[in-house]
Amino acid sequence: MSRFTPLDPRNLFKALESANPSDTLPSTKTLLDAVRFNEAGLLPAIAQQFDSGEVLMMAWMNREALEETLATQRVCYYSRSRQKLWRKGETSGQQQQLKTATLDCDGDTLLLQVDQTGPACHTGRRSCFYVSLSNEHATITSEPLIDPATLYGKK
Amino acid sequence: MSRFTPLDPRNLFKALESANPSDTLPSTKTLLDAVRFNEAGLLPAIAQQFDSGEVLMMAWMNREALEETLATQRVCYYSRSRQKLWRKGETSGQQQQLKTATLDCDGDTLLLQVDQTGPACHTGRRSCFYVSLSNEHATITSEPLIDPATLYGKK
Repeated sequence: MSRFTPLDPRNLFKALESANPSDTLPSTKTLLDAVRFNEAGLLPAIAQQFDSGEVLMMAWMNREALEETLATQRVCYYSRSRQKLWRKGETSGQQQQLKTATLDCDGDTLLLQVDQTGPACHTGRRSCFYVSLSNEHATITSEPLIDPATLYGKK
Repeated sequence: MSRFTPLDPRNLFKALESANPSDTLPSTKTLLDAVRFNEAGLLPAIAQQFDSGEVLMMAWMNREALEETLATQRVCYYSRSRQKLWRKGETSGQQQQLKTATLDCDGDTLLLQVDQTGPACHTGRRSCFYVSLSNEHATITSEPLIDPATLYGKK
């Protein structure tokens, strides 16, 4: 049994600050009980291409989405606009295969290393991050790999 | 003048979906008017080490923090717990020098490429992401570079 298991879930992430790679940790279920989902029950999840390091997107997960992602290794978010689970790529075919899922020190943000098929962005771009800001000016940093009309079957 | 400047701020990010790197964009001020800060006036900001690609942390910015960051090139967040601007490293000395700041397709998330001095995490670890989850088990993936008691002057 882990020396961290008997802790009150509210104190678990604080206690894990002093843990190290040789420690036996509580089960994933116990950790998920301690995850600090926001007032809407959601956790921000950053998706990063596992080999290139490119940050692809940020979306949200509820507990069900995170559990499904860990069980299936296919990334599932929670769509705030559609208010339901969103299996990434279910319409566009542009899926994310999970490599690793890592919580941060506060237990309130998740980093996903994924293998992204094609573009992550609904605009057809590889990454959702493409509006670069300087102090006075802004520029677009990338172009679509695929016409989004093709991606979503409108052509 | 940019062909996107006359647009209603609510439609600007939608219109930028079809923009490309050769387009002249509206000023940063006009873009910030269109950024979709959340109901608390905050935007999630992901910090990534510019050369290694390591994702270091996620924190929040209000408009003032983002404007200061772009003006000074030193990353400034908004601390939700202290309810004030948080110039990263002001206590620990572990600053972030801004390389690039890039908004996503929806204008509601920011990716910062930074040069991080030492550890980004208050635990003394390089990155805040160190609690790795599999379907059943969890592990700690990194150890502190520096004792946090040293970092915060308690030793």
